[in-house]
Amino acid sequence: MGLVVQKYGGSSVADAEGIKRVAKRIVDAKRSGHQVVVVVSAMGDTTDELIDLAGEVSPIPSGREFDMLLTAGERISMALLAMAIKNLGHEAQSFTGSQAGVITDSAHNKARIIDVTPGRIRTSVDEGNIAIVAGFQGVSQDKKDITTLGRGGSDTTAVALAAALDADVCEIYTDVDGVFTADPRVVKKARKIDWISFEDMLELAASGSKVLLHRCVEYARRYNIPIHVRSSFSGLRGTWVSNEPQGDQKMEQAIISGVAHDTSEAKVTVVGVPDKPGEAAAIFRTIADAEVNIDMVVQNVSAASTGLTDISFTLPKAEGRKAIDALERAKGSIGFDSLRYDDQIGKISLVGAGMKTNPGVTAAFFEALSNASVNIELISTSEIRISVVTRADVVDDAVRAVHTAFGLDSDSDEAVVYGGTGR
Amino acid sequence: MGLVVQKYGGSSVADAEGIKRVAKRIVDAKRSGHQVVVVVSAMGDTTDELIDLAGEVSPIPSGREFDMLLTAGERISMALLAMAIKNLGHEAQSFTGSQAGVITDSAHNKARIIDVTPGRIRTSVDEGNIAIVAGFQGVSQDKKDITTLGRGGSDTTAVALAAALDADVCEIYTDVDGVFTADPRVVKKARKIDWISFEDMLELAASGSKVLLHRCVEYARRYNIPIHVRSSFSGLRGTWVSNEPQGDQKMEQAIISGVAHDTSEAKVTVVGVPDKPGEAAAIFRTIADAEVNIDMVVQNVSAASTGLTDISFTLPKAEGRKAIDALERAKGSIGFDSLRYDDQIGKISLVGAGMKTNPGVTAAFFEALSNASVNIELISTSEIRISVVTRADVVDDAVRAVHTAFGLDSDSDEAVVYGGTGR
Repeated sequence: MGLVVQKYGGSSVADAEGIKRVAKRIVDAKRSGHQVVVVVSAMGDTTDELIDLAGEVSPIPSGREFDMLLTAGERISMALLAMAIKNLGHEAQSFTGSQAGVITDSAHNKARIIDVTPGRIRTSVDEGNIAIVAGFQGVSQDKKDITTLGRGGSDTTAVALAAALDADVCEIYTDVDGVFTADPRVVKKARKIDWISFEDMLELAASGSKVLLHRCVEYARRYNIPIHVRSSFSGLRGTWVSNEPQGDQKMEQAIISGVAHDTSEAKVTVVGVPDKPGEAAAIFRTIADAEVNIDMVVQNVSAASTGLTDISFTLPKAEGRKAIDALERAKGSIGFDSLRYDDQIGKISLVGAGMKTNPGVTAAFFEALSNASVNIELISTSEIRISVVTRADVVDDAVRAVHTAFGLDSDSDEAVVYGGTGR
Repeated sequence: MGLVVQKYGGSSVADAEGIKRVAKRIVDAKRSGHQVVVVVSAMGDTTDELIDLAGEVSPIPSGREFDMLLTAGERISMALLAMAIKNLGHEAQSFTGSQAGVITDSAHNKARIIDVTPGRIRTSVDEGNIAIVAGFQGVSQDKKDITTLGRGGSDTTAVALAAALDADVCEIYTDVDGVFTADPRVVKKARKIDWISFEDMLELAASGSKVLLHRCVEYARRYNIPIHVRSSFSGLRGTWVSNEPQGDQKMEQAIISGVAHDTSEAKVTVVGVPDKPGEAAAIFRTIADAEVNIDMVVQNVSAASTGLTDISFTLPKAEGRKAIDALERAKGSIGFDSLRYDDQIGKISLVGAGMKTNPGVTAAFFEALSNASVNIELISTSEIRISVVTRADVVDDAVRAVHTAFGLDSDSDEAVVYGGTGR
């Protein structure tokens, strides 16, 4: 029996009842002979309440102080969880990110983990304790200031600790039963995936799947830590994410892992760009300097008559204003006619390593969209993913059509709950 | 211009408005040229809410986890306060007790400060920042666990930091205007004291005055740190507590500093104790082994006919049950007739270094009580204090009578607000 890292999101520990339920699950794992390290998020709405308080005090809270404030949330949940476990007759100790040795850079509110030195956690579990660690937080290497890891940070904490402790598995407990072949809120016949490779999971996460965040999967792949995503409510087997399927997971390999969609992006088109070297570079240097992250990039063939072309890219809606402002300021030096901004778009992505060796996948994808009368505005592909941009209002229909066309529909109609994973 | 440590209690930072008001006061001190270190308690009811949460999860929360939980409170208030100060255009950084170098023993929930190593605080203020430090908390020397200092802990944090930083003064901001010659809720004509010695303040604190706790004053006396107790609402000059009066404080020396009272104690009488060596020792060893703190002890002259005597002592009502149980269990080995328990008592104390050189004080005190028809049940004295125990229901009348008799009444009738100081 080895060491298991379990992570519980805010919705799993939203109140005293939730904390007690989670405590029982943790004690079960301990009783079955494992060493157990638990990473926990802040309770339910705690983080939002703290953000509101900050807003009442200052319109632009300092990053350092904002992190100090928010980390109070996990402090509360982890102490309560340790109490609840002790109340079940098992020893437990809670540790802050700093105490657990989660060392980060100094980028407040979105710090990256540089190193994990879990000496105290190792000692605690070796002494027979269940160690409870605050997710989402760390301490900066240079200034020893408290930092937070940004969205989905608790999952990353769990995977990083699992890597540093050489855990057998990192279990991510959430309010859904696992990773599905599509968003069950959109596709009623979406199936739970029993096993998926790191690569496919990375593409799904990058394409709009919310269950696991990209950085967490990336970390797990780098250190080869199997992730088991499962429900903290049902206790059922969920989805395993790993390099290779093991045991009965082998049966589960599929050409296509799933269909993801994303309606959180907008499209910017730079119209009338001179078709000459350096133009695209100037545009995307401008965007990068504005610290805007972009997703897809497409350049049309230039019209021979004018020598001008259009360049389109997608980006999070929240960053649209910043990108447009930066490009407008640089209009003179870059040289283009105009900008078009469109936030009524959606992206549908088909993900699966099988498409590398199955040439018909692309054709079947476009046929399915065509049969559903979905017009394609942009196309972008990777080795194991095809993404298209469409109008936002046809996204749901498009996802269902593609899901059915690739034989992903399940036989049963049972409803599944699908939601966020906390932070 | 030197370094000032300011402490703000929970009632001063109960909400966003309170935090902003306190931020302005802090910035004023900084603008006047001081280096400023601020110690802050948890906001208003935060601590009570966290205690309630713990109760929902576990009937007997672990001391270590309870401290981890409670310290979330100051984390929130200090981060918000730092944000509010930065919003006024000044630089501020918040620090946990651990970051501020508050080293304690491992007695969770009631830890004692062993050492203060404020290197980070010194660096922060030398760089021009206002440093905000979490009150009430520290880190244990041996296990590096988070600890809390118990009741009034934030005041102790402030005085200990002031000592370690060699501050000019430790300002304790609270919701009253200072230390009064009596509790203004009982004595309408109580006067604010402008200056009081550490010794008299220690006696007042030990006799029921709630404004400053005994351990905080004790710490300040040991390191000779002047304390200025004042209101965070009015901004008026409050009460200075120090070794020697300075400047215009000299005018303020009085024979009697004030009248304190306390109705939180009960009286235990051990009846029929053999009047021979070792009996009292056996009784108080029993009490000490039960970890009960006692206050006054009085032994009557034994009756010649029986060779038996009675021993009475006072103790906090909350510890009465524990003391009685311990004595009953030891009844056989100690040897006494019976126990009497009385929680309808009150204590009135007259405090002032002047009584050392004024032999008439004791007589005048008893005459004042007699004129008010107050019957005295127990008497106990120190060099600068006389205390009597009476029935609880005559305490208020007794305090007023003594206050008037010693010329402490103020000329004005203006109402003053009087309350707790947070923790």
